[in-house]
Amino acid sequence: HTAVNLADYAACAESVLDAAAWAYLSGGAGDEQTLRANVLAWQRIGLLPRLLQPLAHGHTRVHLFGREWAHPIWLAPVAYQALFHPQAELASAVAAAAQGAGLVLSTLSTTPLETVAQAIADDAARGPLWFQLYLQGDRGADAELIARAEAAGYEAVVLTADAPCHGARDRERRAGFALPPGVQAAHRRPATATPAPLPPGASALFDRLLLRAPNWDDVAWLRAQTRLPILLKGVLHADDARQARSLGLDGAIVSNHGGRTLDTLPPTAERLRHVVDAVGADWPVLVDGGIRRGTDVAKALALGARAVLIGRPYVFGLSAAGPQGVAHVIRLLRDELEIAMALLGARTPQDLARTHLLEPASTPDSR
Amino acid sequence: HTAVNLADYAACAESVLDAAAWAYLSGGAGDEQTLRANVLAWQRIGLLPRLLQPLAHGHTRVHLFGREWAHPIWLAPVAYQALFHPQAELASAVAAAAQGAGLVLSTLSTTPLETVAQAIADDAARGPLWFQLYLQGDRGADAELIARAEAAGYEAVVLTADAPCHGARDRERRAGFALPPGVQAAHRRPATATPAPLPPGASALFDRLLLRAPNWDDVAWLRAQTRLPILLKGVLHADDARQARSLGLDGAIVSNHGGRTLDTLPPTAERLRHVVDAVGADWPVLVDGGIRRGTDVAKALALGARAVLIGRPYVFGLSAAGPQGVAHVIRLLRDELEIAMALLGARTPQDLARTHLLEPASTPDSR
Amino acid sequence: HTAVNLADYAACAESVLDAAAWAYLSGGAGDEQTLRANVLAWQRIGLLPRLLQPLAHGHTRVHLFGREWAHPIWLAPVAYQALFHPQAELASAVAAAAQGAGLVLSTLSTTPLETVAQAIADDAARGPLWFQLYLQGDRGADAELIARAEAAGYEAVVLTADAPCHGARDRERRAGFALPPGVQAAHRRPATATPAPLPPGASALFDRLLLRAPNWDDVAWLRAQTRLPILLKGVLHADDARQARSLGLDGAIVSNHGGRTLDTLPPTAERLRHVVDAVGADWPVLVDGGIRRGTDVAKALALGARAVLIGRPYVFGLSAAGPQGVAHVIRLLRDELEIAMALLGARTPQDLARTHLLEPASTPDSR
Amino acid sequence: HTAVNLADYAACAESVLDAAAWAYLSGGAGDEQTLRANVLAWQRIGLLPRLLQPLAHGHTRVHLFGREWAHPIWLAPVAYQALFHPQAELASAVAAAAQGAGLVLSTLSTTPLETVAQAIADDAARGPLWFQLYLQGDRGADAELIARAEAAGYEAVVLTADAPCHGARDRERRAGFALPPGVQAAHRRPATATPAPLPPGASALFDRLLLRAPNWDDVAWLRAQTRLPILLKGVLHADDARQARSLGLDGAIVSNHGGRTLDTLPPTAERLRHVVDAVGADWPVLVDGGIRRGTDVAKALALGARAVLIGRPYVFGLSAAGPQGVAHVIRLLRDELEIAMALLGARTPQDLARTHLLEPASTPDSR
Ligand SMILES: Cc1cc2nc3c(=O)[nH]c(=O)nc-3n(C[C@H](O)[C@H](O)[C@H](O)COP(=O)(O)O)c2cc1C
Ligand SMILES: Cc1cc2nc3c(=O)[nH]c(=O)nc-3n(C[C@H](O)[C@H](O)[C@H](O)COP(=O)(O)O)c2cc1C
Ligand SMILES: Cc1cc2nc3c(=O)[nH]c(=O)nc-3n(C[C@H](O)[C@H](O)[C@H](O)COP(=O)(O)O)c2cc1C
Ligand SMILES: Cc1cc2nc3c(=O)[nH]c(=O)nc-3n(C[C@H](O)[C@H](O)[C@H](O)COP(=O)(O)O)c2cc1C
Repeated sequence: HTAVNLADYAACAESVLDAAAWAYLSGGAGDEQTLRANVLAWQRIGLLPRLLQPLAHGHTRVHLFGREWAHPIWLAPVAYQALFHPQAELASAVAAAAQGAGLVLSTLSTTPLETVAQAIADDAARGPLWFQLYLQGDRGADAELIARAEAAGYEAVVLTADAPCHGARDRERRAGFALPPGVQAAHRRPATATPAPLPPGASALFDRLLLRAPNWDDVAWLRAQTRLPILLKGVLHADDARQARSLGLDGAIVSNHGGRTLDTLPPTAERLRHVVDAVGADWPVLVDGGIRRGTDVAKALALGARAVLIGRPYVFGLSAAGPQGVAHVIRLLRDELEIAMALLGARTPQDLARTHLLEPASTPDSR
Repeated sequence: HTAVNLADYAACAESVLDAAAWAYLSGGAGDEQTLRANVLAWQRIGLLPRLLQPLAHGHTRVHLFGREWAHPIWLAPVAYQALFHPQAELASAVAAAAQGAGLVLSTLSTTPLETVAQAIADDAARGPLWFQLYLQGDRGADAELIARAEAAGYEAVVLTADAPCHGARDRERRAGFALPPGVQAAHRRPATATPAPLPPGASALFDRLLLRAPNWDDVAWLRAQTRLPILLKGVLHADDARQARSLGLDGAIVSNHGGRTLDTLPPTAERLRHVVDAVGADWPVLVDGGIRRGTDVAKALALGARAVLIGRPYVFGLSAAGPQGVAHVIRLLRDELEIAMALLGARTPQDLARTHLLEPASTPDSR
Repeated sequence: HTAVNLADYAACAESVLDAAAWAYLSGGAGDEQTLRANVLAWQRIGLLPRLLQPLAHGHTRVHLFGREWAHPIWLAPVAYQALFHPQAELASAVAAAAQGAGLVLSTLSTTPLETVAQAIADDAARGPLWFQLYLQGDRGADAELIARAEAAGYEAVVLTADAPCHGARDRERRAGFALPPGVQAAHRRPATATPAPLPPGASALFDRLLLRAPNWDDVAWLRAQTRLPILLKGVLHADDARQARSLGLDGAIVSNHGGRTLDTLPPTAERLRHVVDAVGADWPVLVDGGIRRGTDVAKALALGARAVLIGRPYVFGLSAAGPQGVAHVIRLLRDELEIAMALLGARTPQDLARTHLLEPASTPDSR
Repeated sequence: HTAVNLADYAACAESVLDAAAWAYLSGGAGDEQTLRANVLAWQRIGLLPRLLQPLAHGHTRVHLFGREWAHPIWLAPVAYQALFHPQAELASAVAAAAQGAGLVLSTLSTTPLETVAQAIADDAARGPLWFQLYLQGDRGADAELIARAEAAGYEAVVLTADAPCHGARDRERRAGFALPPGVQAAHRRPATATPAPLPPGASALFDRLLLRAPNWDDVAWLRAQTRLPILLKGVLHADDARQARSLGLDGAIVSNHGGRTLDTLPPTAERLRHVVDAVGADWPVLVDGGIRRGTDVAKALALGARAVLIGRPYVFGLSAAGPQGVAHVIRLLRDELEIAMALLGARTPQDLARTHLLEPASTPDSR
């Protein structure tokens, strides 16, 4: 039967995916408190509409980095989409373009970045086309990847900084998830043969895996590699946004990686306001995590986000129905956003303001 | 078996209605947070009684627009009642009159407004008889409808302003609800043939449906069309009540449309106080949404409402047992109100005051 | 199998009682929010112990009205105990005396007050013996009842003021509860034949039942009828306690009638502090409602109560196992109180203080 | 199938233990509110990471009493481990040593303290080896026990002061738990024959069991018996920590005995901050109760604890899989701690600070 909202696609996806892929896609870190809180925190913000406002010829258009886009709902970087549909990232990209949604391709894409870009770069009605970067500890190779993305037509780089290592993803481990044969990251350096044995008392994490974890120096280096806008993804602390801005980055994405890294991170709906307030309205802040409803999108915009990204929901659509599923997910959410705007009395995204919100009482915390 | 409270009628109604009609009647927008919060917010307000007060010859009578009414429990406008009982709005009206309850007939009544008025207008013991208006974007036709209502004996106009478009009512859509053949709105203009096709990128909502959505100018126009009292229904923001008052309207109904339009609107029990405080005690404010108990009615009155309206509960009664069901619902609620007043130490509705309430701690918010 | 705490007796009682008696005993008003909140509110108060305090020869003894009693756990007035056990109030009284617990006999006892008094008045180890009074609107008869109680040896009068009429006890009504033949109140005036018919529009509640509901004048009258201490039962508002004190009454019982009258009354654990603070430490305040654990008793004493009363729990014991059940319930609770005191570092009830409590954040409200 | 986190070991243990042993091990006092709150309170503290921090060669090492230890996760004293595995305390000790975890042996060990010490004292990679002391009211015997522990190589004494008597452990009583034949405490004085009968009205608790309950004088006495560091276990009130410090003790363990003594004690996660703030950063404070995740450990350290202890989790491991189970539990938790530190941007335990925390709003209370 037909899906009428994003939650319906979750149920569909669960029924078509094998248990391990489902665990990988839907699970979070630890006890999944952040995973749940992400969704609940948007729901807990109340909406206070104004009646009888002018609504004719309203629209959802937003501006970013000098261009106007049809609406502010974009697709977050999600790794290994070949797990979910044979057309993988290509299906997501084509659907995004058809629906005017932005696309952020993951470094861990199973489809080469050029293939994705070729399919949609020339679509006049598409949304922004961005590349998500994981720094992999080898500046030569990292620089090369950035150059490839720039050459292929990607319009911005999203540097993900909140996942120097995997979180404790128990659901995934319990389901015994592993990449099936044939599913592999197109842009990842192959692991260096057998690593040197660790001295006694050493930590596999700190003394091997994190030896070249990216830090702020690498960000400065990255800034010098490209003239594309760079956004820092994974920001929760206002000072990290300030630092990114002071190093010449062009924006931030407030994110807790969809609750997949560290459990009990605060929901993004609670951090967005603090980050926006720290950097000022002229420096773009986007947000993802738990966005499931048009009302959530309206709240994010009212708090000061320029756009939102959805992660799992579109991959649920991809799993359930390929490109059509992804397109339908975007369409459903955009329709809900229009309805929410109309019922709030907001003709355009710019009309959405904090005065439309009734935020729950909570620790005032401006960090 | 016998129903002892309003919740019992919900269960009865569910068992007699088909799934689609039940979804239409009982459902709300989105994840139905507002639907649930409406009920919970009344429950969360505590009652602080005074012992040993004089109670003899207490009563529930209230004054409004120059007349005295037996009690402050009225029937909210509910569309398409032919869905629920063959006697439809007539059954509700007759029961309301028999119980001294006010009646607000919907624009989307399946029974012509004159038929309803004729049945009860001359009943000396009836409550107020009001007409709920949806402005339909055609001033001539709107004016004609108002004139008909006035001629038929309706004593006030209730302008519903919180539903310029439908909410995302997922339960209804999932149940595949559609008006069955033969059930139609008696006062709605038929849809103009096939609408002109939309230009690419245009929005069916903003560029077609909402082109003539009502705004404050239409309210000023409406004010000039009739000398009947006009109440604005759907008010949640204190400034909207102030604006209504300043345009010469006669009162407001604090409402979120029973949680059917925009999910995560605040429960009306939380907004009532702010609206009452904004407009002052002499300008009538009523409230609906989630009222299920005599204690809820007492709390609304103590917060400053002149009367309350119930929506779903009486339609549950209508579905389950026709006019008798409606009458019993009103009677049960009124009996509970009398008991609540007696146990609070309040002899009359006027004795109910905020000192009887223990409101839960929450964001102080005077908007 | 053996009951290890008071909750176990609830389960036993439910299994032996017929559904109607169980509904009468265990149910509350409306949606039973207050019924549940009474229990939860004690649980929500945290305990902050002090380590390594002197504990040898600790005890639970309390003073009231010039005498010392073995412990502060007393039996609240509960009507119609013949519903629960053939020995009815006599069983409760004998068990109370055996366990040194106070007994408050209800006006609606099914056993004559003299019979109860004779059975235990001379037991040196018994607790206080008090009579609970409902004023019944006929001063002559009321005075006579007080005189009988005084003559029989009752040591105080408890005037219940929070129940001028029944609450909306839905569970009871749904179970079709009615007093079975043979179960009748020993001290209630028989209903005057058929009442005069009500004029149209009149209220059976306000214009008949409550015509002679007791008020503060009746309290002043009562004060003049007896030299026994009088306690006002049902106090939730600090001003009602002040008023009682100023009329010469001797104490108050903070109570919401076990959640049986008006739903959404605040839990007594939240009101006790305000009442105690209003009247000062020298004027006795007791409390009942939701006390199920020794920790609850310790908290009530720490908040300033001189003693606590239990209602349903002992009647669960009575239903399940007669006098032995009642005695066991008292014993279990007293043992838990001793343990709680020892683990808190309090040698005597007088050592319990608010510094032992961590009260949950809530609206500061001193009414 | 494999356990991926500590909760998995709880399920395994439940399936292998008999019902009585399971009730003894997993149960708590009263309604088990504190038992549950201990776990929830850690979860409710939010984490606020800093991005892009230097992480290479990070580690989990901590200093205490002049030595450095591999990590701050130690095993709390748990009585009667022969109930759970034939190798009992020996299995726990060997696993602790293998994993570099500290071990606190209970007075109620079923294995003699010398046997345990011999097995691990010389292991260079082991953690601290401490002895938990219950004062048993006989100074001669108590002094002898301390001397034995000191001689055997224990490096500190942990004086447990929060359990002068058993709590009301209903689950245990309902399961009919009793020590099986052959399971007995190695260091407990045998009960003195039949105790003298109590005079009427006397309390078995206060007039017999607690006659020689330890108090602050006994602490002063204990201080004079040994030059080993002494820590006071069971501290919740800041003043008790201050007192311990002023009597020359060397540290405190914030604990509510795992929710096994008095129900509704506050969770340790809420008290830790107050105790740390009272005594200052140079006086060691540890904490136990409800620690189940590496994030919990990180939060405890960020609040100022020098180390944490786990109780039930390792005994679940012991029950399920003997020493391997214990070792795996420690390893899982340490791995999670490393991940949490890395994702927080903390290279070492010393880097963890309150700025990494988002504490839930609650009554400010510095006691
Ligand atoms: C299966 C999966 C894979 C992901 N892979 C990446 C990734 O490769 N790079 C990245 O920056 N974020 C990745 N994310 C995080 C998303 O970009 C996004 O932050 C998150 O999914 C948003 O939350 P939502 O799923 O609740 O919408 C992934 C998320 C999921 C669910
Ligand atoms: C089935 C249904 C139809 C409704 N139709 C109308 C309507 O035609 N006009 C209107 O102003 N409100 C309408 N409402 C809203 C009600 O007037 C009222 O605001 C709401 O039902 C009150 O909440 P309650 O149902 O919780 O009592 C409708 C509500 C329901 C449940
Ligand atoms: C079945 C029942 C009958 C009661 N009858 C009386 C009564 O006759 N007079 C009175 O003052 N209170 C009466 N109460 C209220 C109790 O005295 C007491 O306030 C209440 O039960 C305390 O709450 P608890 O049941 O949670 O302990 C009754 C309570 C119950 C449960
Ligand atoms: C079965 C059991 C026995 C215990 N025995 C002792 C003991 O002998 N001495 C002691 O100081 N604490 C004892 N404790 C308390 C633990 O040392 C520790 O404070 C508690 O278990 C920590 O909470 P957790 O189980 O949630 O980790 C015991 C706890 C359990 C579960």
